[in-house]
Amino acid sequence: MDEAIREAEIAASEGEVPVGAVIVRDGEIIARAHNLVETLESSSAHAEMIAMHRAETELGAKWLTGCTLYATLEPCAMCAGAMVLARIERLCIGTMYRKRSEHGLALDIVQSRELNHRIEVSSGIREEECGRLLSEFFRRKRAEKAAARRAAADENKQSEDVIR
Amino acid sequence: MDEAIREAEIAASEGEVPVGAVIVRDGEIIARAHNLVETLESSSAHAEMIAMHRAETELGAKWLTGCTLYATLEPCAMCAGAMVLARIERLCIGTMYRKRSEHGLALDIVQSRELNHRIEVSSGIREEECGRLLSEFFRRKRAEKAAARRAAADENKQSEDVIR
Repeated sequence: MDEAIREAEIAASEGEVPVGAVIVRDGEIIARAHNLVETLESSSAHAEMIAMHRAETELGAKWLTGCTLYATLEPCAMCAGAMVLARIERLCIGTMYRKRSEHGLALDIVQSRELNHRIEVSSGIREEECGRLLSEFFRRKRAEKAAARRAAADENKQSEDVIR
Repeated sequence: MDEAIREAEIAASEGEVPVGAVIVRDGEIIARAHNLVETLESSSAHAEMIAMHRAETELGAKWLTGCTLYATLEPCAMCAGAMVLARIERLCIGTMYRKRSEHGLALDIVQSRELNHRIEVSSGIREEECGRLLSEFFRRKRAEKAAARRAAADENKQSEDVIR
């Protein structure tokens, strides 16, 4: 999970929501990635999707049998569905979404008895650190927005003063 | 849907499970794709994912607001999740999975009140044709497998006859 956190930190430094993912097979990291939604202008460029794609390329196989995926944040429905398709064996999650409902959705998918593969899940691994990266990122974003709003208001006021 | 069916036919001709997808905006097709799981050796290379990726590139945007996605087969959980992330407006489905449960999963996702976007869904469009493409494909695959098994059995028998 330390390596996935490192990926999330890279995402934050690039202005991306800090989520990182790492895929391990036989005790070795075979792929790592961070969220690239803004950089690639693609709503599906989540850390987990990119990491799975890289792992498939690395193994030259469409299935990631025997692989463990570490994700700093609970996966969304798309990523959870992709993990089932890729036959990921184990999923280790850092922190969960705050809303219980979203939590339910992803776990429903990876452990659904209706799909042809089920994934073993562990969560709460380095939870505090994974969560703190996200809350600090969003706090900084909110502060930047507030500062931009204040600057715009000051500029408007100055223009009005000039007109008067 | 005719164009999505055309894509599914191309998939079948390439030995891929025949599923096609087309994305329309303002009455114009902006992206089309067919299933490429075997060709790209990637479990996530579904028609809908590739079409969404192409549409994002075409529009230079990460959101597909105002777009309708036509898919010959009911989307899986991954594709359904990706459609919500991409903010697809409307989803038109050809044929549904036979198992009711899988059906529920994808529709639960695109219409979940817990996620921040919901998709309008129509299904059963050119249902018979979309379904026939799939059933014929799997019938052909089963026949090919049976023929291969028979050929292997014949070969074994000939070898045994030679030994005797």
